[in-house]
Amino acid sequence: MPVVLGPNRYGKAETRLVRVVRDGGVHHIKDVTVGSALSGDMEAVHLTGDNAAVLPTDTQKNTVYAFARKHGVAEIEDFAILLARHYVESQPTVHHARVEIEEHFWDRIPVSEDVAGERGRHSFVRSGREVRTCAVHHDRDGTTTVVSGLRDLVVLNSTDSEFSGFVEDEYTTLPPTKDRVLATAVSARWRHLPGAEAPGTAYGESYDEVRRHLLGAFAETYSLSLQQTLYAMGERVLNAREEVCEVRLAMPNKHHFLVDLTPFGLDNPNEVFHAADRPYGLIEGSVLRDDAPDARFAWE
Amino acid sequence: MPVVLGPNRYGKAETRLVRVVRDGGVHHIKDVTVGSALSGDMEAVHLTGDNAAVLPTDTQKNTVYAFARKHGVAEIEDFAILLARHYVESQPTVHHARVEIEEHFWDRIPVSEDVAGERGRHSFVRSGREVRTCAVHHDRDGTTTVVSGLRDLVVLNSTDSEFSGFVEDEYTTLPPTKDRVLATAVSARWRHLPGAEAPGTAYGESYDEVRRHLLGAFAETYSLSLQQTLYAMGERVLNAREEVCEVRLAMPNKHHFLVDLTPFGLDNPNEVFHAADRPYGLIEGSVLRDDAPDARFAWE
Amino acid sequence: MPVVLGPNRYGKAETRLVRVVRDGGVHHIKDVTVGSALSGDMEAVHLTGDNAAVLPTDTQKNTVYAFARKHGVAEIEDFAILLARHYVESQPTVHHARVEIEEHFWDRIPVSEDVAGERGRHSFVRSGREVRTCAVHHDRDGTTTVVSGLRDLVVLNSTDSEFSGFVEDEYTTLPPTKDRVLATAVSARWRHLPGAEAPGTAYGESYDEVRRHLLGAFAETYSLSLQQTLYAMGERVLNAREEVCEVRLAMPNKHHFLVDLTPFGLDNPNEVFHAADRPYGLIEGSVLRDDAPDARFAWE
Amino acid sequence: MPVVLGPNRYGKAETRLVRVVRDGGVHHIKDVTVGSALSGDMEAVHLTGDNAAVLPTDTQKNTVYAFARKHGVAEIEDFAILLARHYVESQPTVHHARVEIEEHFWDRIPVSEDVAGERGRHSFVRSGREVRTCAVHHDRDGTTTVVSGLRDLVVLNSTDSEFSGFVEDEYTTLPPTKDRVLATAVSARWRHLPGAEAPGTAYGESYDEVRRHLLGAFAETYSLSLQQTLYAMGERVLNAREEVCEVRLAMPNKHHFLVDLTPFGLDNPNEVFHAADRPYGLIEGSVLRDDAPDARFAWE
Repeated sequence: MPVVLGPNRYGKAETRLVRVVRDGGVHHIKDVTVGSALSGDMEAVHLTGDNAAVLPTDTQKNTVYAFARKHGVAEIEDFAILLARHYVESQPTVHHARVEIEEHFWDRIPVSEDVAGERGRHSFVRSGREVRTCAVHHDRDGTTTVVSGLRDLVVLNSTDSEFSGFVEDEYTTLPPTKDRVLATAVSARWRHLPGAEAPGTAYGESYDEVRRHLLGAFAETYSLSLQQTLYAMGERVLNAREEVCEVRLAMPNKHHFLVDLTPFGLDNPNEVFHAADRPYGLIEGSVLRDDAPDARFAWE
Repeated sequence: MPVVLGPNRYGKAETRLVRVVRDGGVHHIKDVTVGSALSGDMEAVHLTGDNAAVLPTDTQKNTVYAFARKHGVAEIEDFAILLARHYVESQPTVHHARVEIEEHFWDRIPVSEDVAGERGRHSFVRSGREVRTCAVHHDRDGTTTVVSGLRDLVVLNSTDSEFSGFVEDEYTTLPPTKDRVLATAVSARWRHLPGAEAPGTAYGESYDEVRRHLLGAFAETYSLSLQQTLYAMGERVLNAREEVCEVRLAMPNKHHFLVDLTPFGLDNPNEVFHAADRPYGLIEGSVLRDDAPDARFAWE
Repeated sequence: MPVVLGPNRYGKAETRLVRVVRDGGVHHIKDVTVGSALSGDMEAVHLTGDNAAVLPTDTQKNTVYAFARKHGVAEIEDFAILLARHYVESQPTVHHARVEIEEHFWDRIPVSEDVAGERGRHSFVRSGREVRTCAVHHDRDGTTTVVSGLRDLVVLNSTDSEFSGFVEDEYTTLPPTKDRVLATAVSARWRHLPGAEAPGTAYGESYDEVRRHLLGAFAETYSLSLQQTLYAMGERVLNAREEVCEVRLAMPNKHHFLVDLTPFGLDNPNEVFHAADRPYGLIEGSVLRDDAPDARFAWE
Repeated sequence: MPVVLGPNRYGKAETRLVRVVRDGGVHHIKDVTVGSALSGDMEAVHLTGDNAAVLPTDTQKNTVYAFARKHGVAEIEDFAILLARHYVESQPTVHHARVEIEEHFWDRIPVSEDVAGERGRHSFVRSGREVRTCAVHHDRDGTTTVVSGLRDLVVLNSTDSEFSGFVEDEYTTLPPTKDRVLATAVSARWRHLPGAEAPGTAYGESYDEVRRHLLGAFAETYSLSLQQTLYAMGERVLNAREEVCEVRLAMPNKHHFLVDLTPFGLDNPNEVFHAADRPYGLIEGSVLRDDAPDARFAWE
């Protein structure tokens, strides 16, 4: 029975790049993790081990570092676009490239004016807030897609969350609640409208604004279900940001269980909670404009 | 601009279940982690927070435990099928269910015959080998799909691996090699032919055999590229196992770099290696029968 | 040959507690992880399994939650002192208790004045900065020791760091450098002078100030070695904070290697770095007042 | 107020070394992670950044690789002794060295006799069982101490474990039980008698036997408390192995909670368990010969 090669891709994952830019005595750093995945004319390497079509993953790592020096690293989306197009345009055997980048944020450590005047500003502390992400595809048909995102944005509402009116079957024991803690670690990705990938697009501002709207919608939605909150977050982004046509969210329900203190003669008016690890609810959903163009390979 | 709800699903992730079966004084344990994801008539819960269509994730957790008692846990695929069908068949609002299960292996701790005779055999040590996985879908149109798999199967060939003849561009510095260490952590998933989901199918034997063929093909393939090894592994499974119609593999290239000992007046005849963490190559590919039926939602 | 029981302790580790305090519509949260370890009259439980002296670890978990309701959670040191004393004072068989607490920081999500006026302020985002820690011991001889700390404070200087003039033996290949990136993840613990454990002591202010001095000394020290930076950090804390008598620091040298871009015809003027994972340098040291009282069990 | 330098050490952590030995066509691999920590004449480097006494951590990494080629890697204790002595004996400023090594186990992948005859045996699969460890100290006073160990040995008894007769205070809600699952992840370290560090000592056999006795005692002890099991494990090692004078164990109580299935009309005769993550009990204890020599720095 004949066996054939199906979809495939290969590349270098998790190249760790830190770039320092000097603006006089004031330094700036960019801390990113880059992954590339190429596909194309790869029958031979799979079937016979003929590597004639294979740009080594080691070369992809080198390219990341060389491009950081040649072109700098503006917004991660810009850098990903540069890399993705480079692989496809420079290698006839590479028909499609995906470049994923994660950015880790740093804050400046405050130093006194005296120290700064004499020694400059070149000290940083990892902010530890969420990780910014992007995934860019470029195909030899000329299409580029850009998905931006974030992960590990951990948020919590200590009230204004209910959960009731749900289906009850023979295995249901959960009591309805009119007041619970709602906590989640938001993973969000948003697809930019085609054309947004033009150099110079303000991905940085877009990121800050989308993040602000995600947080705002989380905080301001009186929640009857985590699904409702998820939808409200996606909807707010789409209403506020013209450049975005689809938002995909994955939000674990990080359960905070009210501890029963009655055995100790104590009440517990929504004050003391056990933060559980596993299991957890997991809510995934997408929200999109009804005229959003076809996503093609943007989410792959 | 109208905004709409796109694809979505929700469920309980990582329910940790350990089941003990007593066969006289001889105990058996099954240690699994179960996740379920349901979808269907879920507009209202997203748009208005109306939970009337929502079977709580807490109930899904309860169902796992109750089913473990009522039906036992034979092979993980069997248990996943039971659960997936249950959700769809018992809840009109649930049109589709995915159940994912991971199994963690234990070995028996040897005890003397005397002890065993008097006290039984009920002691186990976690084997720490790879994790067995499955993902089962059931749709209200009656279709069930079964994908089995494994992850974290870490393997290494200390020779019989080359890498040369690759593309060299201006960023290529990697020298070709005729003898290198080839190491990877195999993630493999294989799709069963429709019909294989009938109760009583020997998923356990299938698993053991697929695993054996994956290891055999890894060990016995003289490798000119990791892609070639990947393809050989998938091909061998398909040639050997009639019940499997497609294999998907993801294999990081866990680089082992030969250490340059010449500064210390020492040669290094492929003996001393630095095992690197990041970056790493990542090879992903699928191998399938040319008459494999459409996968539909099996891989989602 | 007689065998005896040596030092031992037992307790409940990683009890996850989130406490919500309501100040009208303004909520505050405290998110901590608590561990307790008790020792004392524990021969019998080890030698014969007689549990008559054992306060169950489950009870210790309950105590954490009950105390959070009865006494609140002010600073983590205060809460740890309460718990440690409780175990020793309430249980004759418990001669010594250690309570360790980690605190995870949250920031408030900004909401508009309108929303806040109507709905209150009860929305938070995990700050992701370092973790605050403490370890408190209480012994039945009446001694209480308090060590405060932090971990995962990741910092980086992009210049003003050298490393040269070191020992060179036959295995040394590292070239001296006059300008390198210096990055580390600070783990610091500082011992409070006896007496500092009195209720009402401002552990919160102390923490903020110690953290500020650690960051300041890291940023402002022109570094000839990571050891020098470590010592400067401890010294500055001791000079600035009367309540602290000893500082212990563990600081991995998170290597940032300058990438050699010459194969690509590019220079690299301290701009493009590879951030490595392993191996890493690890520098550990303590700095203390020369009249620091004996630490006894404070660091155990 | 004068500030002084307290105890300190520095070195290279987590150097990843894989060594391949060729015995004709049959290969053997040794996969270890090495850390070194040196101390001595280190005032100047801390106080002024004068590195004249500092053997760079980069050199320590090089030494690991060079020694692997020059001396091979027999048992990890032997290799650690070689390294520790080397640092102290070759560097006047280094007065004390600690070398820690972890070994990761691999099994051979079975291949057919035909393949083995033609191609050799050079294929391995990571066994994933526990990690073997050692910590060796060497001081310039000539003393060497050797502690061997293991971690992540996860074991479970599905019966023959009770817990009752414990202290009950006002916060106790745990019911006594006569039959529970007892599960833990054993971390064990055992100190060899002085003299055991002579080259040629069979650390490999010692390791295998200690492991066997730890497992045997875990399996064969009818447990009234995890402390009793811990003590029995240490005692059995000491009774069986003359070369060992002290055993230290840390054993989390990995709780397996019986799920209450009565809401679903089901009993649960110790069959269906929820394996919890946090919190967990943590039992730590040491068992030693009553004539064990002073440990000095062996455990530091």
